[in-house]
Amino acid sequence: MTIDRTSLRWNGWGPTNQHDALPKGAPAWDWIADALGMTAPLPQTPAKDISTCTLPASGLDGETRLSLERIVGANQVHTGDYERAFHTRGKSYHDLLHLRAGDLSNAPDAVVYPRSADETQALVEIAAASNIVLVPYGGGSSVVGGVTGREADETRICISVDTTLMASVLNVDDTAMTATAQAGIYGPALDKALAAHGVRLGHYPQSFEYSTLGGWVAARGAGQNSNRYGKAEKWLVSASVATPTGTWRTEATPASAAGPNLNQLLAGSEGTLGIITEATFKLHDVPETEDYRGYLFRTFAEGREAIRRIVQTEVPVAMLRLSDADETFFFRTLSSAGKEPGVKDHLTDAYLRLRGYADKPCVLLTGMEGDAANVSHARDRAARIIAASGGMHVGKSPGANWKAGRFHGPMVRDPMMDHGLGVDTLETSTFWPNIEHLHSCVTKALQDAITETLTDDRQRGIVMAHISHSYADGASLYFTFVFPRRLDGGLEGEVEQWLTIKRAASDAILANGGTISHHHGVGTDHAPWLGQEKGPLGMQMLDAIKKTIDPKGIMNPGKLLS
Amino acid sequence: MTIDRTSLRWNGWGPTNQHDALPKGAPAWDWIADALGMTAPLPQTPAKDISTCTLPASGLDGETRLSLERIVGANQVHTGDYERAFHTRGKSYHDLLHLRAGDLSNAPDAVVYPRSADETQALVEIAAASNIVLVPYGGGSSVVGGVTGREADETRICISVDTTLMASVLNVDDTAMTATAQAGIYGPALDKALAAHGVRLGHYPQSFEYSTLGGWVAARGAGQNSNRYGKAEKWLVSASVATPTGTWRTEATPASAAGPNLNQLLAGSEGTLGIITEATFKLHDVPETEDYRGYLFRTFAEGREAIRRIVQTEVPVAMLRLSDADETFFFRTLSSAGKEPGVKDHLTDAYLRLRGYADKPCVLLTGMEGDAANVSHARDRAARIIAASGGMHVGKSPGANWKAGRFHGPMVRDPMMDHGLGVDTLETSTFWPNIEHLHSCVTKALQDAITETLTDDRQRGIVMAHISHSYADGASLYFTFVFPRRLDGGLEGEVEQWLTIKRAASDAILANGGTISHHHGVGTDHAPWLGQEKGPLGMQMLDAIKKTIDPKGIMNPGKLLS
Repeated sequence: MTIDRTSLRWNGWGPTNQHDALPKGAPAWDWIADALGMTAPLPQTPAKDISTCTLPASGLDGETRLSLERIVGANQVHTGDYERAFHTRGKSYHDLLHLRAGDLSNAPDAVVYPRSADETQALVEIAAASNIVLVPYGGGSSVVGGVTGREADETRICISVDTTLMASVLNVDDTAMTATAQAGIYGPALDKALAAHGVRLGHYPQSFEYSTLGGWVAARGAGQNSNRYGKAEKWLVSASVATPTGTWRTEATPASAAGPNLNQLLAGSEGTLGIITEATFKLHDVPETEDYRGYLFRTFAEGREAIRRIVQTEVPVAMLRLSDADETFFFRTLSSAGKEPGVKDHLTDAYLRLRGYADKPCVLLTGMEGDAANVSHARDRAARIIAASGGMHVGKSPGANWKAGRFHGPMVRDPMMDHGLGVDTLETSTFWPNIEHLHSCVTKALQDAITETLTDDRQRGIVMAHISHSYADGASLYFTFVFPRRLDGGLEGEVEQWLTIKRAASDAILANGGTISHHHGVGTDHAPWLGQEKGPLGMQMLDAIKKTIDPKGIMNPGKLLS
Repeated sequence: MTIDRTSLRWNGWGPTNQHDALPKGAPAWDWIADALGMTAPLPQTPAKDISTCTLPASGLDGETRLSLERIVGANQVHTGDYERAFHTRGKSYHDLLHLRAGDLSNAPDAVVYPRSADETQALVEIAAASNIVLVPYGGGSSVVGGVTGREADETRICISVDTTLMASVLNVDDTAMTATAQAGIYGPALDKALAAHGVRLGHYPQSFEYSTLGGWVAARGAGQNSNRYGKAEKWLVSASVATPTGTWRTEATPASAAGPNLNQLLAGSEGTLGIITEATFKLHDVPETEDYRGYLFRTFAEGREAIRRIVQTEVPVAMLRLSDADETFFFRTLSSAGKEPGVKDHLTDAYLRLRGYADKPCVLLTGMEGDAANVSHARDRAARIIAASGGMHVGKSPGANWKAGRFHGPMVRDPMMDHGLGVDTLETSTFWPNIEHLHSCVTKALQDAITETLTDDRQRGIVMAHISHSYADGASLYFTFVFPRRLDGGLEGEVEQWLTIKRAASDAILANGGTISHHHGVGTDHAPWLGQEKGPLGMQMLDAIKKTIDPKGIMNPGKLLS
């Protein structure tokens, strides 16, 4: 089930033949233009075709090529334009700016597809001996610059190591409820193989269809149902990693006091220590039943309070997702743009007004999964807490709608970027007492920075946020922002516009008690802020580990530790 | 509420004035003698009185003393015999062998009691500048050699840093449900201070009364209700640590993808990186209600299967504790030794025989805590699973009995050691499919090794075990073993007897898929086996971190990393 690279967009999200998420002439365009203070029709800013892009010449010499081919076979060493372009960057807004402008200066010299842990280890050892840079690449879905092929100042040979031929489930243990799979398996393939045993990992990030097991661990990712299945660092049991110092098999134990558990160093290491080749992870039964539904709150604070109470009362939920008023409004308006409201819509609006939810309501989606007894217990308890916190039940359709489109968010980005619009997301987490403060500080920082980058003072940005991962002590905040792109300064100007916004948001996060990332990772984009979060001693420890395992710095340089 | 050292046994467990857990003439003595194949009366092997013990002269010079006094004040620098003897070793069987024989060769040169994080940091910096060894000491309850003052080959000045004057709760946040306390606070004082806010940490190790918050984190410990409250690495949110490289404030976030979470390096670091001065941890409401009760199983495997199903079905339990047949028999017989069975006992026995539980039953204790709805939901679900797995309900009294004596186990050790008996415990964990295999391998290794150390072939050891911590993927196994001490070779012979048994068990654990410790830690006793568990790369990483933070190796040398 490995996905052929030529069937995927090298400079966008998803398959090349996908249905256009926002087709030309869709009424939503007018509404977005209006909301951003832009004049319709929006500008045309199509991406460059690969045939018009120039790649730097591959620096892979014949001898090195031969040594790589001896390990993986001649068919698995690629220096062609498409493979190199495909592996030049990940899928962040910043990456897409470069790719769409045809800037492939970061292309790796070659792309290699090992087929086993042994081949990967041999590859890493040759690279270590020859001081060749390796960039681990799974789905390539990083949105923080985690898979950039050649960093700007890198003079060594750079090879992107694509893990996706390592895509087998090796073992399913339905007594321990753990499974072991090769790290390059994509989400849907893993899910399908496990479902045949009646089990699942339950890790469903928005990138699920185009990201891999190894990447989830490396980035310390979170799936949309993390309340039930946990972030990567929770479900990871153990792993095998090909490192320059040899194969690292992390300790495998249900729980231990045998010193620090080094699986927790691997989770979040982002390929800087080695290439994850296999991972063992926890399983759950495929849920007997599930229950997804929606509620409205009059304020974000009331919805947040409901989530806090549900989690702290230990109600077993799979997902709690609260959109702020702007996000609720944005998606509601976007989906209804161009439709004449019918009698039912008027009645609904009247009812909401009557109940006090019409002004700027916030929608909460709840999801429960498991056996019937647990789900009904959880649903009833959550419903009572939500009602007591001021929430109003609005039925199952918001849940069903969300589920139907749960992986499609990134597909809207490409058509928006085709129309002069910038769109990016960033996320953080903080403790419960700080949620509203951090929410408003980051929202304001984003709004102000967007405004600062715009020359036309009728224009403005849209900033919205949601809570999507919650814990006993706090929750994540996920921001989406849409803005008119500065088209007058070329690629450089566009990057500067993005950097201005990104810096403002990141500074606001760190200054106000947030983490620089809850689940996207650090990559290159967040590396400048990591020291502030970890502190000088923390950074010294991370550096010491890096130097011990990868003394020449060949593993994914420039990421995580800049 | 800090405990005065003179009120505690320097060479045993608990207060000096405690009630004798196994008084002279108790009928249990005869039964134990018989079970071990020893002739009654058992030998008298009293511990030496401190007045007859000789301490090595303190190597603390006047200049160093002055520099310490400048930081903590003259009253908090101790070189007297009792303080030094008290801080010579922890509370393992191995430690007690030495202490009871009057071997105080490991005494630190001085004992210092800092009163704040700042004082502790200043202390660590002076020690680093002068190459003085520091041994962090909280309750001193380590049972793995984690607080030994002076390691055998150490020539530097050694100072035991007693943290127990740092015993305040600094902050209780009942929104985030976290609290911050100084690390030297004892379990009961912490529990009492939190209870005033209606909350608890819920960490109740057997050592609860005589161990501290900092020690729980440093050792990666587990409380008896870990199913609900989690091991230390789960409830730890963040900490402040005084290290030779400066104060280390670990990152504080509900969850993050900002690289590896370094709190997970602190948990289990056992004082080898620095002295924990403050820790922030998760809270739970003091439970509205609780439900503890007992069940019998015909076999250990059936009981184990019930635990697995309860945990994997996500029934919210606080504790599941399954004794094997030997442990069930041992405690049942010990508590009834010397009592004439009454009519009720005969009827009970007859009923158990009829139901098939009379042969060698295994007792399971279940504990649920929380709000009434969760507890009744959990109790009913657990009861159904237990019944389906072959368990028979035997009421609430086994639960109540266990709760009443939950912290008293170690108090039986001193009187047993007074009567020529050795008693020690060790523990591990493994994945569900391996539980019975590991249980039988370690039991056999212990039995064989005990037999190997005995010269009288009528004598034998008693080995018993229980599961007390369970997870979705596996569980812990806790072994207790009692044996006739070899009294013919002096202290050296006794240590060799213990080492023979300890080595056999540790080798069996590692060879059969267990971790060298589930919650006791590594200390000096398990250090020889750590490399086998972590692998060469894991050990290199731990060494690199140690050398970075503590380049001179002044922090608790010889522990964890030998």
